[in-house]
Amino acid sequence: MKTKTIPKTLSGFMELDPNDQVLFNKIKDVIESTYKCYGFYPLDTPIIEYSDVLLAKAGGETEKQIYRFLKGDNDLSLRFDMTVPLAKYVAQRYNNLVFPFKRYQIGKVFRGERPQKGRFREFYQCDIDVIGDEELSLMYDAEMPVIIYDIFKKLDFGEFVIKINNRKILKGFLEELNLVSQTEEILRIIDKIDKIGKEEVKSELLALNINEGLVNKIIDFISISGSNKEKIIALKNLNIQNDTFIKGVNELETVINNIQNYYNLSNIEINFTITRGLDYYTGTVYETFLKDYPSIGSVCSGGRYESLAEYYTEKRLPGVGISIGLTRLFYQLKEANLIKEQNNSAADYMIIPMIEDYRYIESVANELRKNNIAVDVCYLEKDFKKKLRYADRLNISYVIIIGEDEVNNNYLTLKNMQDGTQKQITINDLLKK
Amino acid sequence: MKTKTIPKTLSGFMELDPNDQVLFNKIKDVIESTYKCYGFYPLDTPIIEYSDVLLAKAGGETEKQIYRFLKGDNDLSLRFDMTVPLAKYVAQRYNNLVFPFKRYQIGKVFRGERPQKGRFREFYQCDIDVIGDEELSLMYDAEMPVIIYDIFKKLDFGEFVIKINNRKILKGFLEELNLVSQTEEILRIIDKIDKIGKEEVKSELLALNINEGLVNKIIDFISISGSNKEKIIALKNLNIQNDTFIKGVNELETVINNIQNYYNLSNIEINFTITRGLDYYTGTVYETFLKDYPSIGSVCSGGRYESLAEYYTEKRLPGVGISIGLTRLFYQLKEANLIKEQNNSAADYMIIPMIEDYRYIESVANELRKNNIAVDVCYLEKDFKKKLRYADRLNISYVIIIGEDEVNNNYLTLKNMQDGTQKQITINDLLKK
Repeated sequence: MKTKTIPKTLSGFMELDPNDQVLFNKIKDVIESTYKCYGFYPLDTPIIEYSDVLLAKAGGETEKQIYRFLKGDNDLSLRFDMTVPLAKYVAQRYNNLVFPFKRYQIGKVFRGERPQKGRFREFYQCDIDVIGDEELSLMYDAEMPVIIYDIFKKLDFGEFVIKINNRKILKGFLEELNLVSQTEEILRIIDKIDKIGKEEVKSELLALNINEGLVNKIIDFISISGSNKEKIIALKNLNIQNDTFIKGVNELETVINNIQNYYNLSNIEINFTITRGLDYYTGTVYETFLKDYPSIGSVCSGGRYESLAEYYTEKRLPGVGISIGLTRLFYQLKEANLIKEQNNSAADYMIIPMIEDYRYIESVANELRKNNIAVDVCYLEKDFKKKLRYADRLNISYVIIIGEDEVNNNYLTLKNMQDGTQKQITINDLLKK
Repeated sequence: MKTKTIPKTLSGFMELDPNDQVLFNKIKDVIESTYKCYGFYPLDTPIIEYSDVLLAKAGGETEKQIYRFLKGDNDLSLRFDMTVPLAKYVAQRYNNLVFPFKRYQIGKVFRGERPQKGRFREFYQCDIDVIGDEELSLMYDAEMPVIIYDIFKKLDFGEFVIKINNRKILKGFLEELNLVSQTEEILRIIDKIDKIGKEEVKSELLALNINEGLVNKIIDFISISGSNKEKIIALKNLNIQNDTFIKGVNELETVINNIQNYYNLSNIEINFTITRGLDYYTGTVYETFLKDYPSIGSVCSGGRYESLAEYYTEKRLPGVGISIGLTRLFYQLKEANLIKEQNNSAADYMIIPMIEDYRYIESVANELRKNNIAVDVCYLEKDFKKKLRYADRLNISYVIIIGEDEVNNNYLTLKNMQDGTQKQITINDLLKK
């Protein structure tokens, strides 16, 4: 007897049971179909790229996590996000693309992180970005939360809030306080406020050797409360003359007004602690939280950046985008029991044949499939009970039983697998269901 | 000025223009939605696996083509097909899966082939398989061509023929001629008959040192012609007592009868030269050809195998499946000008605003999107002509113009971008379109 290889899967790589995969794909489909509804082009870049292309901008932590290897003479890497491939694509095809260029990309990216619960080395990112040539209307900044709203309404994971800010505001504010050189460190501390609290933020800021007067100004600033309108007014009342600050306030006011006037979104909230760690973002930034599960962290984030592809091209290509880390999100939703979907079978109906002549059976299956209904026919050469058991184990909601009577009278027997009830129905009535 | 990295893509890796990507995805969607309609579960295995798991069975050419590398202490490889990951998955979860297990998997696989025109190193495979536990009804063998038929009818690339055979027939026939030890070589030669012709097949067989009498018997056998029914009768009339042969004829007869009686497929054709190079297949085999473009080769192939996962498990897991190599197919269809689709824009409609107040505009967009219609709103801060030019460059078929009149009278102006005509229409009438 030949030795068998043990069939194992790498840790940190999600591989789902069939019924969970159905649920995962339903979520992915909602995201994709929504992106499509807003007129975004699909994009599908290679998973493998030249290392020098992929790492043109990277460094530090990211670079260490890369899956990088030689194949022949080529130094190759697996993509670790969707933004760098987009930058490459746009720089490469600048002359043929039409700007603003709206694209979505949903696919796997790879990061060799230290494996730990809820962290994945291969995971789906679902991104949209709009890229302008030299300029890009703030209406696109307003459209992003609308798309987030649309997706999370459809996904139905309970109430959520989309937090919005503009990085120029805090940046300009810190310029005004002469704390520019420490901007990145300060932003990183402020970003943690929801996790560590106001007092801890204060002591971490003091630890940066910022004098207490300035620290208190920062704390007061990020503590501004009230409605979105009130927050904007409070910002203006600070009467700060810094250009970056003023520009940031104006941008935020425009974006929030557009969102509220044109789309009537209620669950959007200005929050000055949202800064998105990356220095990549330069204007509007977004984060999205599930109200009942804030511990999950942001489920959809993004923002506006000054230039997409500066490491490939001299062209200024401003953009705005959002991203959903689907693999991690799915894992967390499962852990939190937030995925309620009952119908996680691949088939909407399973036909259980009681006769050997399949003509009528296949014509029924064909008719349903033509109407985009997923139908499995049970070809098990077993008795009725075993066939029913097969349907049951596959979580099928309804089976269609077809025997002599059904064929002769041109109807179907529909059995509800939940409560066991059955009724006779014509195929037309079933299609109307 | 910092030096810029040149944004280049690896050769042998398909990366499409936005409009081509729309077409590619439409084809992929037809394949996926059809697979789903037949009740196949989605499956999504990792792109990276342990090398020893992935290469448990491989060897020779396949092994040389693998993308294989070390990450930390792990010897890793990128998947090179969808069958090995399926085998791993099924062997691993044998106790939790419900058999027959029907799954589809659509994703990228990687083979570092020598780059040449029309060959790709990263390419999509679109597979379905049905896996039984110890046994699997021949009805599943009959269902495969039905699915192929369904897909290629919808794709509308012209007439096509699905060729079917059973590997046991030729195998048994060769046993009868005492040529078993040369089976693989003979099958490989016969497989080439469409490319090299009957005479060349004959001389290659003679070159194997088979005596001319036997070679003529082989040629006569693979030359059997007539209708499917006539071919089966001709096989039976050969009066060969070999068990494998008889089993193969019976299987083929059952499968072809099921296909013709239950599904009424016309374009299925028994062809004894279809053997599928691999010794993996042990029963029914399929190939699909576009009638006007035979040079493209088979566009969808597959077959029945004795045991899916024998290198991982003692369990006998017979299966039947088909595969579409989508990347190569798309490339060839483009080359042959077979992709006729005109509407390759991401958006069904683009709204062109003539006013600054977007309330009505966004409510129209929202209403259309709720009905799953893809709508882009042109937020360009440019004049009307430039906005129209934007829509035109994106291949938009219809633009919706909204200005004062449209808002005040609650209608839309719909402009056909092909012929330039425009008309006024209410949103309800547009939805009925």
